[in-house]
Amino acid sequence: MTFPYALSRSAEKARPSPIRELYAMTRRPGMISFAGGLPDPGIFPIAEFAECAEVLTRLGREVLQYGATEGYPPLVEALCRWMAPRLGRAPTPAELVVTTGSQQVVDLLGRVLVDPGDVVVVEAPTYPGALHTLRNLGARFAVVPCDEGGMLLDRLAEVLERCRHEQGRPPKLLYTIVNFSNPSGACLAADRRPAVLELARRHGVPVLEDDPYGELRFRGEALPSLYRLAGGEGVVWAGSFSKVLAPGVRVAWAVGEAEIIRRMVLLKQGVDLCTPVVSQAMAAEYCRRGHLERHLAKIRVHYAGKAAAMSAALAAALPPGRAAWHDPEGGFFFWLRLDGTDTRSLFERAVERGVAFLPGPAFFPDPAETVGAAVDGAPFARLCFTFAEPDEIVEGCRRLAAALP
Amino acid sequence: MTFPYALSRSAEKARPSPIRELYAMTRRPGMISFAGGLPDPGIFPIAEFAECAEVLTRLGREVLQYGATEGYPPLVEALCRWMAPRLGRAPTPAELVVTTGSQQVVDLLGRVLVDPGDVVVVEAPTYPGALHTLRNLGARFAVVPCDEGGMLLDRLAEVLERCRHEQGRPPKLLYTIVNFSNPSGACLAADRRPAVLELARRHGVPVLEDDPYGELRFRGEALPSLYRLAGGEGVVWAGSFSKVLAPGVRVAWAVGEAEIIRRMVLLKQGVDLCTPVVSQAMAAEYCRRGHLERHLAKIRVHYAGKAAAMSAALAAALPPGRAAWHDPEGGFFFWLRLDGTDTRSLFERAVERGVAFLPGPAFFPDPAETVGAAVDGAPFARLCFTFAEPDEIVEGCRRLAAALP
Repeated sequence: MTFPYALSRSAEKARPSPIRELYAMTRRPGMISFAGGLPDPGIFPIAEFAECAEVLTRLGREVLQYGATEGYPPLVEALCRWMAPRLGRAPTPAELVVTTGSQQVVDLLGRVLVDPGDVVVVEAPTYPGALHTLRNLGARFAVVPCDEGGMLLDRLAEVLERCRHEQGRPPKLLYTIVNFSNPSGACLAADRRPAVLELARRHGVPVLEDDPYGELRFRGEALPSLYRLAGGEGVVWAGSFSKVLAPGVRVAWAVGEAEIIRRMVLLKQGVDLCTPVVSQAMAAEYCRRGHLERHLAKIRVHYAGKAAAMSAALAAALPPGRAAWHDPEGGFFFWLRLDGTDTRSLFERAVERGVAFLPGPAFFPDPAETVGAAVDGAPFARLCFTFAEPDEIVEGCRRLAAALP
Repeated sequence: MTFPYALSRSAEKARPSPIRELYAMTRRPGMISFAGGLPDPGIFPIAEFAECAEVLTRLGREVLQYGATEGYPPLVEALCRWMAPRLGRAPTPAELVVTTGSQQVVDLLGRVLVDPGDVVVVEAPTYPGALHTLRNLGARFAVVPCDEGGMLLDRLAEVLERCRHEQGRPPKLLYTIVNFSNPSGACLAADRRPAVLELARRHGVPVLEDDPYGELRFRGEALPSLYRLAGGEGVVWAGSFSKVLAPGVRVAWAVGEAEIIRRMVLLKQGVDLCTPVVSQAMAAEYCRRGHLERHLAKIRVHYAGKAAAMSAALAAALPPGRAAWHDPEGGFFFWLRLDGTDTRSLFERAVERGVAFLPGPAFFPDPAETVGAAVDGAPFARLCFTFAEPDEIVEGCRRLAAALP
């Protein structure tokens, strides 16, 4: 049916996330899926988390009531403490807001900063969910090409200069996943981090440092966060329990200057009043019982094994020289470059053979919504290594190789 | 500190909810609070709900994973069935979306329909949280004065005519709380319901029927929903577990035509991906175990007693003729009219004497954001009867009477 009422301009422009359509195509019996960025449900701390429901009995009068928009105080305190090493100091409660998934961080900060037509700088490639959120707010995108060390500094400088020149003002936001990027698995190189901050500072662009994967490093040394390097100035840092505990909890958080957090809270009041206190309280209890650090140690080993399995399986299955990739040191993803292949067609052939991945173009803004040069995602493929079982990883890579043209 | 970055236009205009400031003033030892619209935590089904965490153990692999944006399927099915009597038929799953509180229904539907400057028709008085959400989207308000039977039909007709005449197009939305309105406690009279729908239809205005209190009728007969009367056309109906189970669960839902629900889902993908599955699954399990109907029967009796206590306490404490009100037949609120009193000053005196309520102006849009005539909220006061204990209700009404000028 046609919709008989006048839509808002943003709703008129909103379009389904292309990824959801791709996922729909992969739901078939026998499908081996490297498509979704899903944690392994086999390693969810189900018993430990379910036991945390004890907090509902113990503190039910408080936990079942409306909560503060800023977050459930015991969780806020636990997060402030837990964040200290990563952020250089424990943030104050006024510098943190608990959100309903880190998707909400992008939405709230986007709403604080972005008017329709405004430019947001993103990495190419980047997380399609962030593109979807910002697109719904009417953002246009300026893209910074990346290599295995993250954003190319000269290209970032160019993009910022061009925006200033062409738009007459700086972009509204720089969105970056500095650790084990979705989709590329890359980390922003240590020596590029201060330079990115310096460029952002010089051009007056606030940074959203989205870091859901940072704790999932299974090799190499942790790199300092942008937030830490900047002493917290001009950076909003987003963390999440989705990858380190479980996505169904939908608890994430943003840390930033008190003034920007206050503005995000003000909007969040009108968005969902507060993140479910039930979920927050169980997550806080999970932390209080010391489960989080133990579980992290366990999943780092678990995911390291799966990453090694995928690396070996890809090397064994793909013809030499046919694909290029860098083994990730953490996170969830392999990012394959298949020169001369359009991975959208490859996706269809692969799904027919019983293996799914996500084709590269999903991770780049469309040329129509891009300010300046767009980047062609056609030769890339994202493979998630965390969800499938090791034997499925081997078989899936064989099927993928067989689907190559 | 001043914020060094350029804000979006909506964030520039956003301002703290005045209610939050009032609440902050009421947090003192010994305060009897009729201010917050809070359920009685003493009657939360704590044990029954906490036991529902068993579903996390039983279905943890699914419940701790990412969920569908539309909602957790067993909850969607339970809600579709439960809604059937109210809505005239069981909605299909495509006609329902689970949200993170019904606040999110206002936000999502607002984002689907409202551009900055657009007009939304609201009752005067109405729920300040809806005003806050819609204000953050840049809405202006046209207000329809109400009596104890809800919206005055001639005034609604006038408002719609005026909008068409002055704006050259219909308002984007009519927001109404038809049962036990927050704040007035009034129900839209049965004979006005078809007329409201007919006016909305004739002017091409979609209706948001927000119904968090409808199940809390403790006297009189249930009235047919606008959704039912309209056969679902042009009406989005919003339900919530906040008042009938517990607000900390943050599970609510919207029912409407598949096309508008699809558009809300599309935006929700970018807002929080999905409502916490943990919370949804526990709510579904709570329904599956048959707790909801039993609990509803219990709280109806419980709240009827508190409403009767407040009615008697007000009659006993207030000088005859000093205040006018209608005893509510359900819901959470008494709405007092104190002619010649500015309830903002009364609020301050009352808080000094240890009793809090919400002054009327919080429930009306400001004149600056109102299209056409504004309504003066100064002589009104909202008293929530559900939160305080019966002896506190008696003492609180005495303190309120003593604070009168």
